[in-house]
Amino acid sequence: MVQDMAVKEERLIAEIHGGDIYRSKSVVTDFSVNVNPLGAPPEVTVAVRAAAGEICRYPDMHCGRLTEAVGEFERVPAEYIICGNGAAELIFAAVLAVKPKKALVLSPTFSEYERALRAVGAKVNYYELNETENFRVTEDFLDAVTPKTDMVFLCNPNNPTGQSIPKGLVEWVAETCSRQGSFLVIDECFVDFLEDPEKAQMKDRLDDFPGMLIVKALTKLFAMPGLRLGYGMCSDRKFLGRMRDTLQSWNVSVPAQAGGVAALENCGAYLAETKRVIRREREYLAGQLKELGYKVYGSEANYIFFRDFRAKERDLFAMALSAGFLLRDCSSYRGLCRGYYRIAVRMREENERMVAWLRQL
Amino acid sequence: MVQDMAVKEERLIAEIHGGDIYRSKSVVTDFSVNVNPLGAPPEVTVAVRAAAGEICRYPDMHCGRLTEAVGEFERVPAEYIICGNGAAELIFAAVLAVKPKKALVLSPTFSEYERALRAVGAKVNYYELNETENFRVTEDFLDAVTPKTDMVFLCNPNNPTGQSIPKGLVEWVAETCSRQGSFLVIDECFVDFLEDPEKAQMKDRLDDFPGMLIVKALTKLFAMPGLRLGYGMCSDRKFLGRMRDTLQSWNVSVPAQAGGVAALENCGAYLAETKRVIRREREYLAGQLKELGYKVYGSEANYIFFRDFRAKERDLFAMALSAGFLLRDCSSYRGLCRGYYRIAVRMREENERMVAWLRQL
Repeated sequence: MVQDMAVKEERLIAEIHGGDIYRSKSVVTDFSVNVNPLGAPPEVTVAVRAAAGEICRYPDMHCGRLTEAVGEFERVPAEYIICGNGAAELIFAAVLAVKPKKALVLSPTFSEYERALRAVGAKVNYYELNETENFRVTEDFLDAVTPKTDMVFLCNPNNPTGQSIPKGLVEWVAETCSRQGSFLVIDECFVDFLEDPEKAQMKDRLDDFPGMLIVKALTKLFAMPGLRLGYGMCSDRKFLGRMRDTLQSWNVSVPAQAGGVAALENCGAYLAETKRVIRREREYLAGQLKELGYKVYGSEANYIFFRDFRAKERDLFAMALSAGFLLRDCSSYRGLCRGYYRIAVRMREENERMVAWLRQL
Repeated sequence: MVQDMAVKEERLIAEIHGGDIYRSKSVVTDFSVNVNPLGAPPEVTVAVRAAAGEICRYPDMHCGRLTEAVGEFERVPAEYIICGNGAAELIFAAVLAVKPKKALVLSPTFSEYERALRAVGAKVNYYELNETENFRVTEDFLDAVTPKTDMVFLCNPNNPTGQSIPKGLVEWVAETCSRQGSFLVIDECFVDFLEDPEKAQMKDRLDDFPGMLIVKALTKLFAMPGLRLGYGMCSDRKFLGRMRDTLQSWNVSVPAQAGGVAALENCGAYLAETKRVIRREREYLAGQLKELGYKVYGSEANYIFFRDFRAKERDLFAMALSAGFLLRDCSSYRGLCRGYYRIAVRMREENERMVAWLRQL
């Protein structure tokens, strides 16, 4: 009974957004959050440690060096960039800048879009991703964007499904949004984990679609979620100004700005290693899960979305928890039910332990 | 000419909110920001340095340890507390939770209230503080709160004037707001720098006024503005819930939570020393300014608000800048004009250098 309660608590906590290790007593290995398994580059840790001596100063309210570093990293003009206290803050700022009455989001998807939309009282419509389509966004998404749609959110690749939306389709969506007067936000927080980001990302089309904001985070790619650091890219500087009007003046802390600059400078080798590890481990984990009878969908990024068809007879989340693995139970996502899980791609030894445990079930 | 341009740039930058040392080339000593001149307690620096190794984890979204530490420090129930990425974030969250059509703010005062109110399209009315009243809030403030006033902002002691509002008057305002249905936000970010915070602060009246939010920051008191850390106190937990609905899920970073806990634990000696230094240096600086012919107002906290009556013939900001001192030129505040300045109370040696420079003008 006591154990049941504990599992229930863990599930409730984990359901919110992935693992909340601060309230978790039993977790050994956290597969519920989607960050780079390599951990933060050592340069970031060093920079944050050094920034500890600089906290008596206000942060640079214009995030000057950071914005330049992001611009060079993305090969996008610095004037197109806005920095935030995590990508999530920019999602809220974009919604506050648009003040939509009606918005369109995927279902299932990352829950902060809807939270931000509800905060301004927007009516939220859903484009339902179907299991029969392997949870892919298809061309009928275009029909869902109407003249009454003030704002559209895409997540590419989508979280939690790990399906990417091909760039050609995203361009059609952007054209449709532009025609219908809908502001388009594309969350590309996981795009750099794809095998070919070029086949999905839209940053080279910023000039063509001023009504499009791309949101990204350093959180996931550089494994620094504790620092809170994200950025947005948009060619409409007036819109960026409206976003800034909704944000306090010093939203990005000194350690986050320092850590971000350190991450982006000389990150070539780290990102190459990331790509190598993610590719190898994603294939390994997905392959093993399939072999063990789980249905794996999409999973093109650094996380695997799968279904346990025996969900009626067993509770994989609770079982994993008692074995020391925290999964992301996806049953709380709108559009999903019991039996869907997401796990992060981690390092080989951890992935092997997880697979070994699954094998003996 | 080039120098004129540089001074103009510095002024524009400094006018926004006090010194922007990131764009400043010439500044030696920054008197424009109001933080504790002792600098951050060493425990905070140590905690932030240690947190550098924890950035690969998401922050505790509930700020559990920090909330408890704030509760103990303020002697307020932990359920009454909400933590934010600086007090400024909570000002925006409060406005988003109230969604006021009409609001009342002091003039002059800290500009983020108005920025937040404008972000939701609220009409802002001003209670004009008068030089003839030494910029004090008087009882006629009560008349300014009408049934149409959805939200009222007080800053106690007020920034930039340094005048505190006596607790009796604040209580009248709270009663009036309660009767008129106006939500009251009191920014007490500088209250702990007062000689007797008890004569101004309202935290012991939280239960009596559920429609009142007190906002405070660790930024100023513990000299850690670079970390971004503030908190709000309110007895209406539903209201705190509505504020949380407007915030992203992980708004306070790992280093900020760690630094905040370190600051609040065992802060007795640091705060006693703070009180001693501020009292001594405030008296010294204010006394010297008066002696030199400047008019000093209020200035009960850790900053001095004064007027240079020779403003028509000289530009004290530019002159100070070329001598290596950054002042806060207050001419950009609504309700003030050229000749008003704010300087922070700093350590004796710095204050002496400033005074020596003023003497030889």
